[in-house]
Amino acid sequence: MDAPVSLEGFEVGYDVPALPGMDEADIQTPCLVLDLDALERNIRKMGDYAKAHGMRHRVHGKMHKSVDVAKLQERLGGAAGVCCQKVSEAEVFVRGGIRDVLVSNQVRDTKKIDRLAQLPKLGARTTVCVDDIDNVGELSAAVQRHGTQIECFVEIDCGAGRCGVTTTAEVVEIARAIAVAPGLKFSGIQAYQGAMQHLDTYAARKEKLDAAIAQVKDALAGLKEAGLEAELVSGGGTGSYYFEANSGVYNELQCGSYAFMDADYGRILDKDGKRIDKGEWENAFFILTQVMSHTKADRAICDAGLKAQSVDSGLPLVFGRDDVDYIGCSDEHGVISDPTGALKVGDKLRLVPGHCDPTANVHDWYVGVRDGKVECLWPVSARGKVY
Amino acid sequence: MDAPVSLEGFEVGYDVPALPGMDEADIQTPCLVLDLDALERNIRKMGDYAKAHGMRHRVHGKMHKSVDVAKLQERLGGAAGVCCQKVSEAEVFVRGGIRDVLVSNQVRDTKKIDRLAQLPKLGARTTVCVDDIDNVGELSAAVQRHGTQIECFVEIDCGAGRCGVTTTAEVVEIARAIAVAPGLKFSGIQAYQGAMQHLDTYAARKEKLDAAIAQVKDALAGLKEAGLEAELVSGGGTGSYYFEANSGVYNELQCGSYAFMDADYGRILDKDGKRIDKGEWENAFFILTQVMSHTKADRAICDAGLKAQSVDSGLPLVFGRDDVDYIGCSDEHGVISDPTGALKVGDKLRLVPGHCDPTANVHDWYVGVRDGKVECLWPVSARGKVY
Repeated sequence: MDAPVSLEGFEVGYDVPALPGMDEADIQTPCLVLDLDALERNIRKMGDYAKAHGMRHRVHGKMHKSVDVAKLQERLGGAAGVCCQKVSEAEVFVRGGIRDVLVSNQVRDTKKIDRLAQLPKLGARTTVCVDDIDNVGELSAAVQRHGTQIECFVEIDCGAGRCGVTTTAEVVEIARAIAVAPGLKFSGIQAYQGAMQHLDTYAARKEKLDAAIAQVKDALAGLKEAGLEAELVSGGGTGSYYFEANSGVYNELQCGSYAFMDADYGRILDKDGKRIDKGEWENAFFILTQVMSHTKADRAICDAGLKAQSVDSGLPLVFGRDDVDYIGCSDEHGVISDPTGALKVGDKLRLVPGHCDPTANVHDWYVGVRDGKVECLWPVSARGKVY
Repeated sequence: MDAPVSLEGFEVGYDVPALPGMDEADIQTPCLVLDLDALERNIRKMGDYAKAHGMRHRVHGKMHKSVDVAKLQERLGGAAGVCCQKVSEAEVFVRGGIRDVLVSNQVRDTKKIDRLAQLPKLGARTTVCVDDIDNVGELSAAVQRHGTQIECFVEIDCGAGRCGVTTTAEVVEIARAIAVAPGLKFSGIQAYQGAMQHLDTYAARKEKLDAAIAQVKDALAGLKEAGLEAELVSGGGTGSYYFEANSGVYNELQCGSYAFMDADYGRILDKDGKRIDKGEWENAFFILTQVMSHTKADRAICDAGLKAQSVDSGLPLVFGRDDVDYIGCSDEHGVISDPTGALKVGDKLRLVPGHCDPTANVHDWYVGVRDGKVECLWPVSARGKVY
């Protein structure tokens, strides 16, 4: 591993929530805690699955925004680089030593395109998605200006309803333009079905993914007819990777949340009707919070509110406790129902956030713990890199 | 004004979204934009109101988390210091030059109490809230250790259902303990009714505030009987300040959101049934976003999603446009309905966020604009200071 961030002179509670070597009990709250054993097991498990199914696994760095986690995914999970959503994020990963980066998104702003075109100079294979033929000329002009080459995926909207083209004719038209554009290489298809990942039942998710696979098959046939080859067909998330891995058309996965898990993903059911956080994946990612007021007998107030998490996908769950519930949230407070009066001021709880990605993005640090001790402190390296 | 943050060597799009002097059109998105004219008008207006009503105005720094905005509120709005919610936040304001700071919250962790007790050494009058008699001894021990003095407000829960005591007997008991505790000074009552600020109608808000005022009056009578005097009675927000200012019992306001405004506050109605963002206050705070995909005729995709805002209080509004709507949000994308096809890739829009406080907290910078030019770049100084 590379040398860690220098923490010399950092003060706990002002600069950082904890320092390596500290007892878990002394961590300042609220902060993000990673259970390193669980994290490593999740990473190895997905890595083994991808390998067994002959898939590249390009881990989604937008989820954790951490160079350290990405490198752990390379080391333990055999990850083949990173995808992320923003050029500024890609810059952080490349500067941190990731050598294969996909911006799984459109880049249209002139300044952003110019920065993207310079990434290969830092030693990274750089790929970007395209859903508009006008973008091809913009990208080509920029890489020619910088004497670099970038690869392009044509993005298919296979159900998310956001970016991406919907017809094979458009896929072929854009791929053809990329193939002949100086400095660009057509190297594949981006086909991530984002809207189905959180559907509860396996059958509902399969139905949506079957449709996506059919769309991708049609696009690949169209490309073949036009004499074009998609080296990579990329997609798949924590709620669908087994469909892509067994599709016969995808050869690259883009899973993110599996490594951390969250309450919203945890609720979805596997093939046997079991929650995926009760066997398939472990909760490795928590908000550590402390009770700081308890003036009413049946409710405690903790120090993790809206500034310690995103509640877009619902409130967090209290991990490992059946007797208390997180029932309300304001800027700096969480309300915990405590019907049996089990909690007292100073008690700490682990919360499983509703949605891991935007929750990670409000914090500066991950506190990695093992056996009751703080083992590492990792910066959320690309936090706030939204440009 | 103090010297601004040094921006030498900062790169637009990597470190910062803009630099002073730049055209507004060149700002990198998504980012926070402040309309400086509107901000200054809001600040002066509330300052004038407080002055005319003989109220101190201790502005709520938890909203903007910015030393620069707090100083503008002192300079243009006559603000008498800042309140904030966390010790680490208070440290930022005090180190930035604010000389009167209230942590309008409970501080119970040993480490946090120890840091709080050191704030007066940096030259700041320091006040904290207390809702538990056990906290009095903890605070007193810490200030004695550091040879400092801090002031204490007893916090009354007057309807928010979070921290605070609910009976006059408890108020008196805690105040008495503070008054005799070495190093502490009992200096008032914290009585912020947080739960009513966002009720739509003036009448509904008045009813809740009348109840809070009655509770405060009872507490003050109890304190008087016990020979204790509350120098300050503090509370009031953007949805209620006129009630506190005319109550005859409050003498300090704690408004925050009035300076920026947001979509959720904007919806509430004034005495005449008019939205408060259509006359009482101006929208001064925006997320600037850019359209980056438009593959479907009737919807555009913009670059501001969950990592550029908090949607806890609903989706953002598109400012100044009747023809388009922000209708959906994922991690890095916003979906804009565009029924007339008015938007094209590259177009920029100003979004009014649902909730200003947690939205400010995900960004590193405020871009201050006036007359189409970037005038200043202010750090969100206490961003991420949640400890």
